[in-house]
Amino acid sequence: MSRTVYVNGDYLPEDEAKVSIFDRSFLMADGVYEVTSVLEGKLIDFDGHLARLERSLAELDMQKPEAFDDLLDIHRELVRRNDLVDGMIYLQVSRGSAGDRDFVFPDPDEVKPTLVLFTQSKPGLADSPAAKTGIKIISIEDIRWGRRDIKTVQLLYPSMGKMMAKKAGCDDAWMVKDGFVTEGTSNNAYIVKNGKIITRHLSNDILHGITRAAVLRFAREAQMEVEERSFTLDEAKEADEGFVTSASAFVLPVVEIDGTTLGDGKPGPVARRLREIYLDESLKSAI
Amino acid sequence: MSRTVYVNGDYLPEDEAKVSIFDRSFLMADGVYEVTSVLEGKLIDFDGHLARLERSLAELDMQKPEAFDDLLDIHRELVRRNDLVDGMIYLQVSRGSAGDRDFVFPDPDEVKPTLVLFTQSKPGLADSPAAKTGIKIISIEDIRWGRRDIKTVQLLYPSMGKMMAKKAGCDDAWMVKDGFVTEGTSNNAYIVKNGKIITRHLSNDILHGITRAAVLRFAREAQMEVEERSFTLDEAKEADEGFVTSASAFVLPVVEIDGTTLGDGKPGPVARRLREIYLDESLKSAI
Repeated sequence: MSRTVYVNGDYLPEDEAKVSIFDRSFLMADGVYEVTSVLEGKLIDFDGHLARLERSLAELDMQKPEAFDDLLDIHRELVRRNDLVDGMIYLQVSRGSAGDRDFVFPDPDEVKPTLVLFTQSKPGLADSPAAKTGIKIISIEDIRWGRRDIKTVQLLYPSMGKMMAKKAGCDDAWMVKDGFVTEGTSNNAYIVKNGKIITRHLSNDILHGITRAAVLRFAREAQMEVEERSFTLDEAKEADEGFVTSASAFVLPVVEIDGTTLGDGKPGPVARRLREIYLDESLKSAI
Repeated sequence: MSRTVYVNGDYLPEDEAKVSIFDRSFLMADGVYEVTSVLEGKLIDFDGHLARLERSLAELDMQKPEAFDDLLDIHRELVRRNDLVDGMIYLQVSRGSAGDRDFVFPDPDEVKPTLVLFTQSKPGLADSPAAKTGIKIISIEDIRWGRRDIKTVQLLYPSMGKMMAKKAGCDDAWMVKDGFVTEGTSNNAYIVKNGKIITRHLSNDILHGITRAAVLRFAREAQMEVEERSFTLDEAKEADEGFVTSASAFVLPVVEIDGTTLGDGKPGPVARRLREIYLDESLKSAI
């Protein structure tokens, strides 16, 4: 079945969904995005994603799309039109097309942002086999740009990282800067040592994960100890457990780093517990 | 007059030239590009741009577009159809559209690259007023990713840099990493001190400019002294002259850095001489 996607006010069959070759996301990666998970037909952490989108736009002096205030309705309409039960909704705002290529931003009074949304159906998203086995990761150097807190579409290196992991027979990569882990290719990274959850503090070095914020809040509410600080790759390899969080993976245990097994090589109790809490609580507040 | 542009084998009116919203250049900046100048209807340094394109593709494990061997013909056809005398031809290869979004590269047997080309008419391109007055630049921190030798479409930061320069009443920005100038937002950077031309050596830190290579060759042939090494921003401010090179700006004198005037504030003799030689020689070998 062909998906119905959203492009600048229109609901279209996916194969008719196009943007100009002059769109600035196509020509110069001048766009930001969000991915919101859908479970049982409802949106998870929608408000958090909307708030981060607003921040990304502001950081890049990009105007809000005209339909900004209707984004919840558009998300719900896409869920409805695509009979989406479990999966994700991808949203991208591009600075738009000025009908030509220029490094200088177009006049915002003349050129309006491009707004694109589409669904991705993932039946059983919350029941992923990877959550039961845990994932294996490799480490790669973090050579991305310096504003990773802005959720831009400059995803070439994370994409290359995923390919490097695949080639190494692993599931994902953690990026390392000056010896310290920054984050995964599309998720935040955590280790657990002696019951303490350690994850990098917020800065321009990492994405300010919406799932990260929720998971840390739930962890603290459950009286778990949380330390937000940089940790080294060596420290990670000696950890009792590891895990990642993201909007679409929720909480996913890490059982191997660069061939070194963490703990007994099975998903650890902290990761398993946090996944359970996160899914329970998120479903409760899903809209 | 509407331009005729090229998209995947078709010559189209520019307002009909579109790509899928699932194209990887749009969704994750997974594309590379080249800009070739046209003077008097002829292509400047075409072979150099083609060779660099081939290298960019190889570095990203991206397959060549099917029309790779026809690129010269396509360039010439665009010149012809658009009556292009002076200007540029922009070319972009994207990894293409797999009809969905995934960090993992699509199977190259199934998903073919997207090839887009369009012209930009710039009458009197070789006679730009900026060449006569010189340009004023600001310095900004270089926070781009670590593989600037690959000419990817990840141009958001250079675009932001151009806006920062504009806001400061200047023409462009030089990017500085650890105190050393890397390059301009869309050009290579040079200073001249005591007759010696100094420009950063090739590495992953800068674009391997096609115009840079030609200009350095011409400089050496003209018995000018060339030193390829990093130089600091402070050194640049104390230089006798400065200039930038790029495919579309050729050689452009820099007369001010962060408010500090270089030399007497007018285009220096080395920059002027190199511009003259470059334009003469390039026109001779234009095809």
